[in-house]
Amino acid sequence: MADEVVLLDYWASMFGMRARVALAEKGAKYEYREEDLRNKIKSQVLLQMNPVHKKIPVLIHNGKPVCESLIIVQYIDEIWRDKAPLLPSEPYQKAHSRFWADFIDKKLYDAGSKIWLTKGEEQEAAKKDFIEILKQLEGQLGDKPYFEGEKFGFLDIALITFYCWFHAYETCGNFSIEAECPKLIAWAKRCMQRESVSKSLADEKKVYELVLGVQKMLGVD
Amino acid sequence: MADEVVLLDYWASMFGMRARVALAEKGAKYEYREEDLRNKIKSQVLLQMNPVHKKIPVLIHNGKPVCESLIIVQYIDEIWRDKAPLLPSEPYQKAHSRFWADFIDKKLYDAGSKIWLTKGEEQEAAKKDFIEILKQLEGQLGDKPYFEGEKFGFLDIALITFYCWFHAYETCGNFSIEAECPKLIAWAKRCMQRESVSKSLADEKKVYELVLGVQKMLGVD
Repeated sequence: MADEVVLLDYWASMFGMRARVALAEKGAKYEYREEDLRNKIKSQVLLQMNPVHKKIPVLIHNGKPVCESLIIVQYIDEIWRDKAPLLPSEPYQKAHSRFWADFIDKKLYDAGSKIWLTKGEEQEAAKKDFIEILKQLEGQLGDKPYFEGEKFGFLDIALITFYCWFHAYETCGNFSIEAECPKLIAWAKRCMQRESVSKSLADEKKVYELVLGVQKMLGVD
Repeated sequence: MADEVVLLDYWASMFGMRARVALAEKGAKYEYREEDLRNKIKSQVLLQMNPVHKKIPVLIHNGKPVCESLIIVQYIDEIWRDKAPLLPSEPYQKAHSRFWADFIDKKLYDAGSKIWLTKGEEQEAAKKDFIEILKQLEGQLGDKPYFEGEKFGFLDIALITFYCWFHAYETCGNFSIEAECPKLIAWAKRCMQRESVSKSLADEKKVYELVLGVQKMLGVD
């Protein structure tokens, strides 16, 4: 029996994109199902498959749901284990990758969102936080081509999906991420040369349009 | 060369206790180093070993730090792999365990803390949240002896360390967790029969005294 793989996702979600990149790295075929989150409509399938958080992404593998993007990427790595290993095999390196991926989840999304959801002093503080977080990550990257060394892997996936939001952050915040973190941007461009990444990430201009729309709706502009 | 294992910890931390239970399950010898967090003093070693979050627990294995309790437990499981496996080996079960452990981290600590840090309506809401979270977990336990089935494992460790705080939650909130979640309490008592758990968890009366002290300091009482 062939595997049935379905991804419940939303085009602009950096968390959903992580699952897309991981599946692409593995060459796994799957059915992509877009949730209409822009209009705050959640499908019955989503509510049934992730009743706890009611959030995308959800990977449905032969009818069984896996939720939370980093858990999904680890699951994908374990199921399609013969191709393109994503997590390091050595326990200490694995713990290190998990730590920094968790750091991204705890810090980066909120700091990034505040850049376009706030104005004035609050926005300035958010920009400072955001750059500080990226500099910590850039420090971890060092002079390696990828976060885990010579090969593209788990931690690259955890971070690269934010890259298509950088244009929106920069335009709303009127600052340049590249001026602050040139090595990180060089790494991002390196990742974008991979088809698994370039084909999975959203168009940065469309992300910016989405941000403008949400700002207008919330009265931030 | 023998392994050098050090745990930076604080006696009342449910996160630190997770590392203690996991190490005890594995029969791993380690040096326990108490951080004086009650007096808000953090050792130079802690600041050096976890410069990002500056939080316990930190497991230092042959000089290298591993941080964040669930990452530490997974690391311990991978290093001491020959004894008492903690995570399920099957990828879907593993993803399931990771999901619920993450759920505990995202929900339970905050809800529990609000029970003793607030009063009145806010406290009532916290109690309701807390019980709701425990009921979801109890639903996952079902009629199994342990969360992952017949054997004590990762998800049991993630949750059982909260048990020694239950007395403080109940006394401050004037409610009975057992009346709401009898199966969960039966599970907790089952876990407490394991030496790895009973010797790693703090005394519930001392936890309550700590809570009273902090309440007094913050003017909650």
